[in-house]
Amino acid sequence: MSFDTLFNWNDMPDLLEKYLPIWLNEKTVDKPSVANLNNEERERLKNLSFQDQGKDPNEILDIMSNDVYKKLWKIDHPRNMAFVPSPVSPLSSIVEICNSIFNPYAAGYENSEGTNILENKTIRFLAGALGYDEEQAGGFSTSGGSMANFSAFILARDQKLKQEDFAKARIYATDQAHSSIAKAARLLGFLPQQITKVDTDDDFKMIPADLRHKILADKENGFCPFLIVATAGTTNTGVVDPLSEIADIRDEFNLWLHVDGAYGASAALSSYRSILSGIERTDSVTWDAHKWLFQTLSCSFLIVRDGKLLHNSFHSSAEYLEAVEDDNATFAETNGWDISIEMTRPARTMKLWFTFQVAGMETIQKALDHGFESIVYLAKLFENKKDWRIVSEPHMSTLNVRFEPEGWSKEMTDAAQVYLCDENLKTGFATYITTKLLGDKVIRFCAPHPDLTKADLEKITIDLFERGAELKANPDLIYD
Amino acid sequence: MSFDTLFNWNDMPDLLEKYLPIWLNEKTVDKPSVANLNNEERERLKNLSFQDQGKDPNEILDIMSNDVYKKLWKIDHPRNMAFVPSPVSPLSSIVEICNSIFNPYAAGYENSEGTNILENKTIRFLAGALGYDEEQAGGFSTSGGSMANFSAFILARDQKLKQEDFAKARIYATDQAHSSIAKAARLLGFLPQQITKVDTDDDFKMIPADLRHKILADKENGFCPFLIVATAGTTNTGVVDPLSEIADIRDEFNLWLHVDGAYGASAALSSYRSILSGIERTDSVTWDAHKWLFQTLSCSFLIVRDGKLLHNSFHSSAEYLEAVEDDNATFAETNGWDISIEMTRPARTMKLWFTFQVAGMETIQKALDHGFESIVYLAKLFENKKDWRIVSEPHMSTLNVRFEPEGWSKEMTDAAQVYLCDENLKTGFATYITTKLLGDKVIRFCAPHPDLTKADLEKITIDLFERGAELKANPDLIYD
Repeated sequence: MSFDTLFNWNDMPDLLEKYLPIWLNEKTVDKPSVANLNNEERERLKNLSFQDQGKDPNEILDIMSNDVYKKLWKIDHPRNMAFVPSPVSPLSSIVEICNSIFNPYAAGYENSEGTNILENKTIRFLAGALGYDEEQAGGFSTSGGSMANFSAFILARDQKLKQEDFAKARIYATDQAHSSIAKAARLLGFLPQQITKVDTDDDFKMIPADLRHKILADKENGFCPFLIVATAGTTNTGVVDPLSEIADIRDEFNLWLHVDGAYGASAALSSYRSILSGIERTDSVTWDAHKWLFQTLSCSFLIVRDGKLLHNSFHSSAEYLEAVEDDNATFAETNGWDISIEMTRPARTMKLWFTFQVAGMETIQKALDHGFESIVYLAKLFENKKDWRIVSEPHMSTLNVRFEPEGWSKEMTDAAQVYLCDENLKTGFATYITTKLLGDKVIRFCAPHPDLTKADLEKITIDLFERGAELKANPDLIYD
Repeated sequence: MSFDTLFNWNDMPDLLEKYLPIWLNEKTVDKPSVANLNNEERERLKNLSFQDQGKDPNEILDIMSNDVYKKLWKIDHPRNMAFVPSPVSPLSSIVEICNSIFNPYAAGYENSEGTNILENKTIRFLAGALGYDEEQAGGFSTSGGSMANFSAFILARDQKLKQEDFAKARIYATDQAHSSIAKAARLLGFLPQQITKVDTDDDFKMIPADLRHKILADKENGFCPFLIVATAGTTNTGVVDPLSEIADIRDEFNLWLHVDGAYGASAALSSYRSILSGIERTDSVTWDAHKWLFQTLSCSFLIVRDGKLLHNSFHSSAEYLEAVEDDNATFAETNGWDISIEMTRPARTMKLWFTFQVAGMETIQKALDHGFESIVYLAKLFENKKDWRIVSEPHMSTLNVRFEPEGWSKEMTDAAQVYLCDENLKTGFATYITTKLLGDKVIRFCAPHPDLTKADLEKITIDLFERGAELKANPDLIYD
């Protein structure tokens, strides 16, 4: 491609006319939920080098369409139930396309006032849905829950910890907290022992009495508690920690209470919002719209009850920014680079704004409710099923089960869960994987997709029961 | 919109057929480089609330097309020369569209092996272009230079600083370092006095002798130097710090040497790569492909000379990840969540891979060279021009000038630069703003866009000279 055409947008419509139907064809529900590269494809990709001369865009788009993007764990497939799935509405994708063409500099207020107005409105709306005061609250988008959780750690440290107390600082979380919590602490320079593990009850929820006990013990030993991390919708089981009781303890000791609601905060827009009771009393909430609010990657948020704290931790200053700094700006008109880690970011929140506008909040609510209802239906299919145990009841859209034939050793039973998941993955009909609860491997289903049907769930369980029966009859299959 | 259609991708082609031409029409060069909302548009946007019932997507897309995305500082307009512009190739946009439809979970190797192979190849290619050993090097994409710089601070701290030395730590940078450097230090809990300012020479480059002197003085005073931050292409003037001499000092004291090349690292792919001499000896480099490598927001990188250090700082672990952890994975097969801050991220590097494949590296080189040549041409237009002084010669694609009529006070001369930029902005023909050098306001041009023509530059200067002459004749215009 010559230098003259590198910036010529005129060919784009023709390329899209050709490839868009090919790409959209992959979105149909009869396509596999998971596919992997074969050896030939893998080698072809590895051997593609960069050359002085360019190649025909059609040639490269063919490779992308046939190999790269077709051979995925499709995280937005209706029958994907691994990790926390990302059901995506095309409404989100349309705005991404618009963003990719206009490329607004979204972190600068004056540089892109329209997106700033609408993104701010959306963030305040989310804050209101959590029960925060929309006018007092603040927040910003991030690339994901890890970045949002990490940002909350920075706020908590700046509000509740002096630099000289750094080595004595203590953070409180359960072993059900997301991996990004321990990572956030490490990234900020805390040592592993600076996280005090709080015990969980039989439902894998934080035990407030144990939290209080451990804070007291740490204080007695000269440590400096500053941050409690609770979860609304744990990754393993979907439970919500008892937020109101935890907020009481936060008040008693004047700490920061952050809630990782990456997965579960969306319940605030569902008919099941009461399970988040107490979230309005917390200090900050992580909320991933690319998990359970139907957005493409990335679209995550940190929502903060007291928005004016953001500037203290995140402001930037430089000579070349003075030209667009407005000393009289209200909080709503603040430049994004002054209230979050990032200075450059895509206009991530526009797609959520558009989805809410076009879908309407009633449809959003129904789409969320469907996930709660799917998982209850799935649990029913496992109830009283011989050789199967429900290890963790439905919470949010998550269920954990375990195949436990009588007389099998723990080791063999653990291996059976992995075997059953692997066998299923080979079919590509649905995607689900294992996790561990109380040291046992279990099969975990996370089923938020609004297009997941009862018939899908029936077929998934019938297949699984059949494979379980086969395995019971011939346990050596595990080791073949 | 009903719940049934929220996930129906069939309407997307029709919507795109209607709106794509409208959007692409805004990309033409005769459109203004900068536009702002008027009061009516602003109020309309502020009054759009979220409703239970959804609206017609056409209605909302009309608002987006006519107000939100048309009224921008167009950062990829050929005549945008404010901040560091982002010339964008449609090749980048096409891949963003593909990403937005397929939504690959790019941080998981097994979840999206194809994108991982190609993204890794691209990052290693960038590392090679810097002179790092492609096999030893590592790196990852980020949302921008701020995140990449910040990530480098984490690596440097983990490699070169013990927790008990935290309060005594010292970081070295000049006052020409990007605002994200001071911010990165603050985000990690360092106090402002933990950055030791290194002096610059007449060209605004770091003075190695002063760096060495200050490190020695800090050590004598019991402080712990651990990180030097140099810049390749400063935001203000585009200069490159003397990297080789700085690397000698890094060696002498066993520190981490990070280079913020957000803007200037792209010179490595141009004919002017020798200006980066010594960059191959540094420890890490920030490189924004959404600045001067023709990519949409966001596409930035941290490239690290010794890739195996990444795992130590950034690894994650959780039960639900075990199902996709591969103990035998090579570094190239590592999950992204183990080698960067983020656990979720878009497949940001695919668009750069595609651009390189289709454009070819020769065309990329020519497109970069154009920026170097444009700014030399622009400087010529200011040479020996009465009342105008070139404050900083062309470096990368950046030039700083100052309008200095004889006998004007500093205050009035400063105000004149702002006035001249504001008057230009009103025309929408080109975008440029002020910065400050040695305490003086100056007019700064950053001109990397490959479609910026000599005729554009001539018109821009003719207009500016005319406005300067008018102002000289009637200085009260500044205060009107």
